[in-house]
Amino acid sequence: MIKIGILGYGNLGRGVEAAIKQSPDMVLTGVYTRRSPDSLKINTEGVEVRHVSELEKKRDDIDVLVICGGSATDLPEMTPKYAKLYNVIDSFDTHARIPEHFANVDAAAKDGKTVGVISCGWDPGMFSVNRLYSTSILPVGSAYTFWGKGVSQGHSDAVRRIEGVLDARQYTIPVEKALDSVRAGENPELTTREKHTRECFVVADEGADKARIENEIKTMPNYFSDYDTTVHFISAEEMKRDHSSLPHGGSVIYSGQTAGGNNHVVEYSLKLDSNPEFTGAVLIAYARAAYRLGCEGAFGAKTVFDIAPAYLSPLSGEELRAHYL
Amino acid sequence: MIKIGILGYGNLGRGVEAAIKQSPDMVLTGVYTRRSPDSLKINTEGVEVRHVSELEKKRDDIDVLVICGGSATDLPEMTPKYAKLYNVIDSFDTHARIPEHFANVDAAAKDGKTVGVISCGWDPGMFSVNRLYSTSILPVGSAYTFWGKGVSQGHSDAVRRIEGVLDARQYTIPVEKALDSVRAGENPELTTREKHTRECFVVADEGADKARIENEIKTMPNYFSDYDTTVHFISAEEMKRDHSSLPHGGSVIYSGQTAGGNNHVVEYSLKLDSNPEFTGAVLIAYARAAYRLGCEGAFGAKTVFDIAPAYLSPLSGEELRAHYL
Repeated sequence: MIKIGILGYGNLGRGVEAAIKQSPDMVLTGVYTRRSPDSLKINTEGVEVRHVSELEKKRDDIDVLVICGGSATDLPEMTPKYAKLYNVIDSFDTHARIPEHFANVDAAAKDGKTVGVISCGWDPGMFSVNRLYSTSILPVGSAYTFWGKGVSQGHSDAVRRIEGVLDARQYTIPVEKALDSVRAGENPELTTREKHTRECFVVADEGADKARIENEIKTMPNYFSDYDTTVHFISAEEMKRDHSSLPHGGSVIYSGQTAGGNNHVVEYSLKLDSNPEFTGAVLIAYARAAYRLGCEGAFGAKTVFDIAPAYLSPLSGEELRAHYL
Repeated sequence: MIKIGILGYGNLGRGVEAAIKQSPDMVLTGVYTRRSPDSLKINTEGVEVRHVSELEKKRDDIDVLVICGGSATDLPEMTPKYAKLYNVIDSFDTHARIPEHFANVDAAAKDGKTVGVISCGWDPGMFSVNRLYSTSILPVGSAYTFWGKGVSQGHSDAVRRIEGVLDARQYTIPVEKALDSVRAGENPELTTREKHTRECFVVADEGADKARIENEIKTMPNYFSDYDTTVHFISAEEMKRDHSSLPHGGSVIYSGQTAGGNNHVVEYSLKLDSNPEFTGAVLIAYARAAYRLGCEGAFGAKTVFDIAPAYLSPLSGEELRAHYL
């Protein structure tokens, strides 16, 4: 059995925990938190919650540590730190800082003789793999990534920071017309506004100026100003009833041309009822790979690009060839 | 530059040749044929056509030999034979014989210190990779593979063998209702007949008994008897005008459930205007991988399961992480 530790028990940590339950070759041996361990109630019976400080000295009950922290400040510090002691995996998604993060984790993992898989999940992750496969097979062509319909946590948080907003949920929605054009192999040039719209559900403080809130949302740079955004004010009850789940998904569509003059459209799409549970499931499949690569002595940082698909499965090569090829 | 030889110059051989033209790091150094070399006119200027016998003695102008033969009799003999001398790749697709073929190529390649990639293309190939990724990420779920709409060469050939048939083209068509149900996450149990229909276009000999031909097609075991089949008789001119291209495609749809009770639908789909050109493009991307694995000394037989995506691209790890992750 591969022994898994989870560091951080938010939505993603619970998604990882759920994925371990479906993995016959894995066992959860501990959840680690910066909060008071007593304050956490987890979903796996008989597994201890420990304070993060207990990770400082190498533990024998962890083969892979799944680090479920935020990309802004947690992961840049945590992943290299723990890669010195454990095989680790994270879902680091700050694109511009990936080279730096990769280098830091690579140095730490080589030093610690461990494997550090970074930027795993679905984007970055499975979407990245599909962009790479398609562009490698069809070097002449265009890749399009559409997200949604789904909840963007970052955009929801941005709305929540506006004065007078008690709660908010932001859905990213791909524009059907753009999707249709790409799927038809028309290779359109699309602006940001033409690819996605944004829809916000907001619970406002009693007496708050809704017109001001709506205007602040729609004009917020980076997050909303380049998009057509719709804002709905709802009650706290409606928020709880209609917007409690975290669905997401999207499509990577590649439209390429071979030298014989023919067009080919490759599409990889996800419809996820729970973003954190699917992301957790991807992390756990790659945690298996990290463990195996560690056993083989292939130390250092890796991404989904560096890992052969067979490493993700508990089945043998013979079984895979017999049933999945 | 990676030096590529092509063995066999039918539809697939020409597809491979087209793919090499779009590969900046590759050069075609020869086409090998069992026919008289003078009888072949190829699409790359300045490249020689040689008789297959010239492959018998190890040639220095081949880094990877792409073997474009049939699965029934050519590949089981050719791939192990040439794996003793060259890195090789094939598109072997007789599912039941893959274990035997893998073992034969593995022994030959280890003996010859080469790499032999077998069963490459889109199914087996990219569809297999997607079945494996999805089932590894979501171990609880069902995989569905739909083919088409596209021309099945095997079924077209089967119809051509009927007495009185001059030419035939068979399209495999997925049933929309089944696709919709799978995409909706309904996890239906589907019979063969419920998943695909078959449509045949037939040029019959003058005076042939069309009713007899239609009946022979519709009742042909393995090929047609388990399907709802439509037969259209057309003229040779119509066949040439409307059915000269070889489009194909399909979808691998995986519907899985995470332990938190949520459903997730993953779909990988292909719409290919030319089946042989896309298959050739996949072979060439994996030929690059075969060459690199050979340089690393990772000798033996491989499938798409054993090869990390980064090996397919001419770009460096840094470039890939910067642009595709």
